[in-house]
Amino acid sequence: MQVFLFMKKIVTIGGGTGSFTLLSGLKEYPIRLSAIVSMADNGGSTGVLRDELGVLPPGDVRQCLVALSNSSDSLRKLMNYRFENGGLGGHNFGNILLSALEKVEGGFLAGVKEAEKILNIKGEVIPVTESDVDLYMKLNDGTLLKGERDITVSIDIEKKGIDQYYLNPKAKANKKAIKRIMEADMIVIGPGNLYSSVLPNFLVDGISEAICKSKAIVVFNCNLANKEGQSEGFTLENYADIINKYLRKDRIDFVTFNTKKPSKKLIEKYKKQKEYLVYFDKDIKKNYKVIATNLLSNKISKLNKTDKMAMSRAFIRHDSDKLAKVLMFLLELEENKGLIGKII
Amino acid sequence: MQVFLFMKKIVTIGGGTGSFTLLSGLKEYPIRLSAIVSMADNGGSTGVLRDELGVLPPGDVRQCLVALSNSSDSLRKLMNYRFENGGLGGHNFGNILLSALEKVEGGFLAGVKEAEKILNIKGEVIPVTESDVDLYMKLNDGTLLKGERDITVSIDIEKKGIDQYYLNPKAKANKKAIKRIMEADMIVIGPGNLYSSVLPNFLVDGISEAICKSKAIVVFNCNLANKEGQSEGFTLENYADIINKYLRKDRIDFVTFNTKKPSKKLIEKYKKQKEYLVYFDKDIKKNYKVIATNLLSNKISKLNKTDKMAMSRAFIRHDSDKLAKVLMFLLELEENKGLIGKII
Repeated sequence: MQVFLFMKKIVTIGGGTGSFTLLSGLKEYPIRLSAIVSMADNGGSTGVLRDELGVLPPGDVRQCLVALSNSSDSLRKLMNYRFENGGLGGHNFGNILLSALEKVEGGFLAGVKEAEKILNIKGEVIPVTESDVDLYMKLNDGTLLKGERDITVSIDIEKKGIDQYYLNPKAKANKKAIKRIMEADMIVIGPGNLYSSVLPNFLVDGISEAICKSKAIVVFNCNLANKEGQSEGFTLENYADIINKYLRKDRIDFVTFNTKKPSKKLIEKYKKQKEYLVYFDKDIKKNYKVIATNLLSNKISKLNKTDKMAMSRAFIRHDSDKLAKVLMFLLELEENKGLIGKII
Repeated sequence: MQVFLFMKKIVTIGGGTGSFTLLSGLKEYPIRLSAIVSMADNGGSTGVLRDELGVLPPGDVRQCLVALSNSSDSLRKLMNYRFENGGLGGHNFGNILLSALEKVEGGFLAGVKEAEKILNIKGEVIPVTESDVDLYMKLNDGTLLKGERDITVSIDIEKKGIDQYYLNPKAKANKKAIKRIMEADMIVIGPGNLYSSVLPNFLVDGISEAICKSKAIVVFNCNLANKEGQSEGFTLENYADIINKYLRKDRIDFVTFNTKKPSKKLIEKYKKQKEYLVYFDKDIKKNYKVIATNLLSNKISKLNKTDKMAMSRAFIRHDSDKLAKVLMFLLELEENKGLIGKII
């Protein structure tokens, strides 16, 4: 089996904790792994560093680097360590590292390359763009949400409807991102928050076009739970449709979907925040295949214990290993398509 | 020749830029190298981190780690990179790294050990104490200089005279520092500023005693220039006497002394700050041997260009290679003492 998988090229597209989970699992397989990462974050430590130092947002890249790192646990812990007091208060060490490297190396991409060496990572982390951009969302009533942070916390998006959703200034895709997408055997979208982690990648000029042109199979890891005011009552179909809409083509080949129910306690906790599990209607005819199986994590990620935001955000999360296994299965399936015909 | 030198144990004692210069040279030789570093700094980035985060002073340790690092130039540059703006403004990246490691590893010594791995260093860096101490100097007129920083800039020390010079609270020597001193074949003191880099090490309980008990040969690298208000008009003998006084025994075996005159321009520059070259009187009878030779650097260290304080402080400095060669010569000399008798 390893023979078929060897050197297969997988490109992931996302950002935030979702990418961390996905990459932590994929890292264990003998594949060529490229993680394309959203660059629109302006919250927390990342936002302060952008404002004060004029650097590009390091937070999402840091999470991917840690996920792919083969270095010691100490070094991985260090990357996520958050200072508590003084001028450094609130900053992740890893964010400071990436900002310093951007300065020393004379550019964000060169800085990320150096960080890859320091952290001895498997594969590569590719910022989707090197343009210094902010994410905006204009709602139908004229409300303007400025920056990823405001969009993440808004509960008005569904109610008011989206008029425009864009990056400003216009962002040009990192050439390497395009190259890797075009060469890929499999492109994996998500998991991640729709408007703040996944879709911002498709707002970068050239990314959607490349995904449509690429011969890769495209997999979307469907969200586990809906988000208040943003995707309330969303079904698997709604998620897939919105991704395809931003790709400007029905490009998704497979959707992975979790069928395992979390504990009642967790479901109640989510309900209090008006967040419900995503629903999947088997009987609706689709242009993609759905892999419906147990993808749920039983544990809280150790590595993110220092990241309070991630902790509060996602108690119901994907399991790295289960997710990676399903993706590897799909890759193998494609490899054997000619032999075994329609398996699902 | 390498046969004799192989595995010889050299312990250096100092701090600041002097240690950086010395270690950069010694690093190239096949020896077991242990750098004992002063822990009384409270100035600049180091002082702020101590105050705000309650960490031990990282600055001197950082310089030694960089000197001994076998990692890429990029990583060494990164360690000395100083942030210019915002909450991080004024901090060296390396200081931030050491402070974060102290927190993550649960102690300064454990943090330094981890930094040694990250930076792939030759030998080891040993903080002279793990006690959280401040350096004090009480002058004869009652003036109290608090902290290394105030002592470094004082021009009253000679004029008023020293009543007391001490650490508060009392500092206990790091056990490993004592162990390495006792095992050493050669102990190298300085170069470095007398009251702020070199002597603070001897104020730590147990260090002087260990040096006196050790069977190592003891070498003092004499300063190149005198310091206004602190060592004006000092001769080589004055420096050696004061070191021996704090060692509480005439323990110095050799003194290295630079005979090469700097450029007239540099000498004029120093004169303006009332700093003059150290004088050496060959005819005075001494309890130690003097190696008088060219030890002067022709260049400004590239690595310290980001460190403005170091730049302004020491245009007249030791040459790493020349200094290390002389020390290696002395080590070989001792090895062959029985064979070749009195060579100087």
